[in-house]
Formats: sequence, C-alpha cells, structure tokens
Amino acid sequence: MTEMAGRPGTSGGLVLRAGQFIFAAACICAMSSAPGFTNYTAFCYLIASMGLQALWSLGLACLDCYALILKRDLQQAFFMSLFVVGDWVTAILSFAAACSAGGVVVLFERDAYFCRRDPQLPCGRFEVATAFAFLSCACSAASALVVFWLLASL
Amino acid sequence: MTEMAGRPGTSGGLVLRAGQFIFAAACICAMSSAPGFTNYTAFCYLIASMGLQALWSLGLACLDCYALILKRDLQQAFFMSLFVVGDWVTAILSFAAACSAGGVVVLFERDAYFCRRDPQLPCGRFEVATAFAFLSCACSAASALVVFWLLASL
Repeated sequence: MTEMAGRPGTSGGLVLRAGQFIFAAACICAMSSAPGFTNYTAFCYLIASMGLQALWSLGLACLDCYALILKRDLQQAFFMSLFVVGDWVTAILSFAAACSAGGVVVLFERDAYFCRRDPQLPCGRFEVATAFAFLSCACSAASALVVFWLLASL
Repeated sequence: MTEMAGRPGTSGGLVLRAGQFIFAAACICAMSSAPGFTNYTAFCYLIASMGLQALWSLGLACLDCYALILKRDLQQAFFMSLFVVGDWVTAILSFAAACSAGGVVVLFERDAYFCRRDPQLPCGRFEVATAFAFLSCACSAASALVVFWLLASL
C-alpha cells in the first residue's frame, strides 16, 4: 500500500501538486480578468479558495522537489497527518467554491438568461474559471485520497 | 481501529444513517413546499441528490438494524467496498448540490437582492432547505470517512 502512485515525495505526487497549482492559478487569472466579478460572493469566494489552494500546492510541490532531489522519505506519521489535514481542508474548500460558482454560472446561463440579456456580463470567463476550479479540485481530491489512504494504512 | 464509533452495523452507524435520512427528507419537504423552485436548476439538482441520499441512507439504516438485531458483523471487505463506493458517491453529490444551492441562495439574498425586490420568492424556504442539505452532508461525510478508514485498515 505504501507504493501507491501519487504519494508525497515522488514524481507522481509532484505531478498532482503541479496540476493543482496550474489549474488554480489559471482559474484565478480567468476570473480576475472578468470585469465585475467582485459583485458576486460565489466568485470572490472562488478566488479566495483557489488562492489558498495555489499556495498550499506550491508549498507541497517544493517539498516534493526537496524529497526527490535529496531522496528523503516523507512517509512518516507527522508529515502524513499534516498532509491529510491540509489536503482535506483545501480540497473541501475548493470543491465547495467550484460548486457554488457552478450553481451561479448555470443560473446566469440557463435559468435567468442573464448572459443573453446582458451581453456585457463576461459569462464565458466565469465558465472557464469554474472549469479550471473543477480541474484543480480533481487533482486535489486525488492527493487527499492518497494521503488519507496512506495514513490509514501506516 | 475496527472499534471506531459510527462504523456500519453498530448503533453509532445507525444514528448517522438516521441523521442523513431525516435531514435529507426535511430538505426535500422544505424545498418542494417552495413554489417556483423548479425554475432553478440548482434547486432541482438539490432535490434529486437529496432523494438519492435519502434512499441510500434508508437502505443502509435497514441493514444496520438487521445487523444489530441478528448480531451480524458487516466489517467484511465486500460490504466495506460497497459502503465506501455508495457513501462517497452520495456524499460528493449531496455536497455539490448543497454548495451550488448555497451559491444561488447567497446570490438571491445578498448580491442581486432578488429576495427584497420580489417578496413572492420563497427565499426563507430555499435557505432552510439548503441548511438541511448541509446537515445531511455532514452526517454523510462522517459515514464516508469512517468506512474509508475501515477499508484502508482492513
């Protein structure tokens, strides 16, 4: 069980962290380039939670690089507990933010027809940012499940 | 680890299942009593996912009762794998539905002031239904974590 792909301190783990960081950063860029996003709480919350996700993933990616270069083992109970707490908190916050932004985007697009009525509303950018947030969540969920499984089997 | 509170086939597990079912049913009642909820995709999705949650929790609660009355042990790899898949799918769907409904409720209440502008909109019921959905999710997340932990430590 301790040879799982994507565990911390391996190249698989580094790829997952890089994915989380890149998608979170892309989400922030797409959303912050959409004028007027600050009028909507769900989109502000998305930016905040993706910012936290990007910081956490960048930190863990650096730790993975350190472990890979110096061939250190990160699979100790202390590190695993820290990764589990951090990964689960960031994954849950990101998923909540992505879903609430998704709910608002669907409302704009399909339920209230805001996008058709107001062509100034940057619906395309809201959609792209929400899609990137879900991709970041998917990478984050994979990391969270791997570390939880590793902690449980320690 | 196999003596964890809330594991399937124990009274703790039954309490968690009962909580999931009661809150999911309360969410469905509150939302379906709100006129016009079918105009909003997020609220329709909330009803659908809470319906699935209620059915799954009721089934598992019956299985817990059976195990408690006949003193059967449900901690076998087959049952655990089944519980993990079902619990995680329902927990993730419910959480996504609760968050997207939450995003729409916040938009109605704070961002677009729909609730003030249109007193016919049953915002109070939307809020109550969303709160019940989050309570059901909390119980569901507890069950999902317990069974995942148990499967990992089998």
